Amino acid sequence: MRIHIGPEHDDHLAAAVVAGGGTLSALDDADALVWTGGAEDFPELPDRVRWVQLTFAGIEPFFRAGLIDDRRMWANASGVYADNVAEYAVGALLVGLRQFHASVTAREWTKDRLDPRVRTLHGSTVAIVGCGGIGRAMIPRLHALGAEVVAVNRSGRPVDGAKVTLPAERAAEVWSTADHFVIAAPATAATDRLVDAAVLTEMPETAWLVNVARGNLVDTDALVDALKTGAIAGAVLDVTDPEPLPAGHPLWELENAVITPHIANTRTHLTANFAPTLEENVRRFLKGEELLARVDPSVGY
Amino acid sequence: MRIHIGPEHDDHLAAAVVAGGGTLSALDDADALVWTGGAEDFPELPDRVRWVQLTFAGIEPFFRAGLIDDRRMWANASGVYADNVAEYAVGALLVGLRQFHASVTAREWTKDRLDPRVRTLHGSTVAIVGCGGIGRAMIPRLHALGAEVVAVNRSGRPVDGAKVTLPAERAAEVWSTADHFVIAAPATAATDRLVDAAVLTEMPETAWLVNVARGNLVDTDALVDALKTGAIAGAVLDVTDPEPLPAGHPLWELENAVITPHIANTRTHLTANFAPTLEENVRRFLKGEELLARVDPSVGY
Repeated sequence: MRIHIGPEHDDHLAAAVVAGGGTLSALDDADALVWTGGAEDFPELPDRVRWVQLTFAGIEPFFRAGLIDDRRMWANASGVYADNVAEYAVGALLVGLRQFHASVTAREWTKDRLDPRVRTLHGSTVAIVGCGGIGRAMIPRLHALGAEVVAVNRSGRPVDGAKVTLPAERAAEVWSTADHFVIAAPATAATDRLVDAAVLTEMPETAWLVNVARGNLVDTDALVDALKTGAIAGAVLDVTDPEPLPAGHPLWELENAVITPHIANTRTHLTANFAPTLEENVRRFLKGEELLARVDPSVGY
Repeated sequence: MRIHIGPEHDDHLAAAVVAGGGTLSALDDADALVWTGGAEDFPELPDRVRWVQLTFAGIEPFFRAGLIDDRRMWANASGVYADNVAEYAVGALLVGLRQFHASVTAREWTKDRLDPRVRTLHGSTVAIVGCGGIGRAMIPRLHALGAEVVAVNRSGRPVDGAKVTLPAERAAEVWSTADHFVIAAPATAATDRLVDAAVLTEMPETAWLVNVARGNLVDTDALVDALKTGAIAGAVLDVTDPEPLPAGHPLWELENAVITPHIANTRTHLTANFAPTLEENVRRFLKGEELLARVDPSVGY
């Protein structure tokens, strides 16, 4: 089985292809393509390519570009980086609840100001909205830290370890009942601006919001308003709308908004972290088995 | 059994005394004293006071003032706030490793700068130096986050869940072998400036140092040098020397130093959090049982 890696060669991925039983080839001769680039420079595929392996979890640009269809199999990296993103999300909650964000910018001892604002993760309830691989990786971490979890997913099928699992159409129930919120849902038409002005009003005033999904799941203007008026305590965003967030955007200036530049899953170690999954998928493709993280064109992820 | 609460009345503690089977009284008639104040305004005790219950874990000012001796029993709040401080310490590690501290002050999208600097807690080894109640509360949290723990304590008696436990006299072995360091030892003559210039040189350049013990366990001038030269990656300090850290101190200006104003255990909820322990100790005192967190004058905590 011949596999092309593009747009650039990568040592980690090449080794994984070989270890899984494949051989490296030019695209014209390839049975499969491993693509580390974006949708905008995606190549014209020969008909013989039966499998495209993407190396990111968020692949909505490929859907928007009309690239993903039933003519061949597509797989993404959903779940591969879950531990990494889950760790980030737990850290993001602690950054806000424990007032680290306000401490970083302090230039004097402000105990009287910060002490009463500290909240604890232990004893709190965290809602994970879009509780897939990242959410499942968060649950044991949150439990060890003494928090309970309410999960929201598409089907409402109970998530192990969640106190309650709600289907997406009942997400409205979660905003006024949980203490803090992690948005980890795939970006689809159904989740666009899921967190809007009305939702932000329903959240407790002490709530912290963490977004590790895609920027457009949160209505940015509504969030700026909510952070300014104190409708919620704060937000930690690894993804923004627009992204990259331009210099001068009001979010940069808000003390209760922490913006990290899409580093919950770092690019630096990406292909090294993805290599074991690629190796397994090469093996499965050779045997005709179901691929890990196969994309379902009908649902959009 | 008559118990006096001073220097001020406190509803949470008063309720705990009564629930434990005691009655509230003036100091002159008291069999026991619950003291929420400092050493500097500690009262002259009638001989009939057989037990003094302090409500903090760090009681070295009472030792320095010569107040603690064998004439009566003393107990402190060691371990009571362990969950709270452990949660802070885990958060502090994530603040540094995941580059939240640098993100907070950013006013533009700096992925190229921050992405390569991100480290993960999963896969790392954290040394807990002074692995008592706080350290034991950290271990399940760190395990759930995928980190291993090396413990250092006075006796070297193995700590549950630690990969290795070293006695204090072998602490030197830990500095060059762990990835990150949490200082949680009691402040005694033996731990004063435990982390000095030599120790900071031995730590990996990627190490983050967290201090939740007392400021004087770290040599502040040596730490400033180490942070400036990049001998270590950064430090998160909830306690400082001097404390409060004065405005204008060089630590405030260092991007890789995060100073929180002694809020790992918040004063705001202190007596409410301590009340269950007081109730139990009142019960034990009445029955003549060993008190929780009884102070051993011979070791200094």
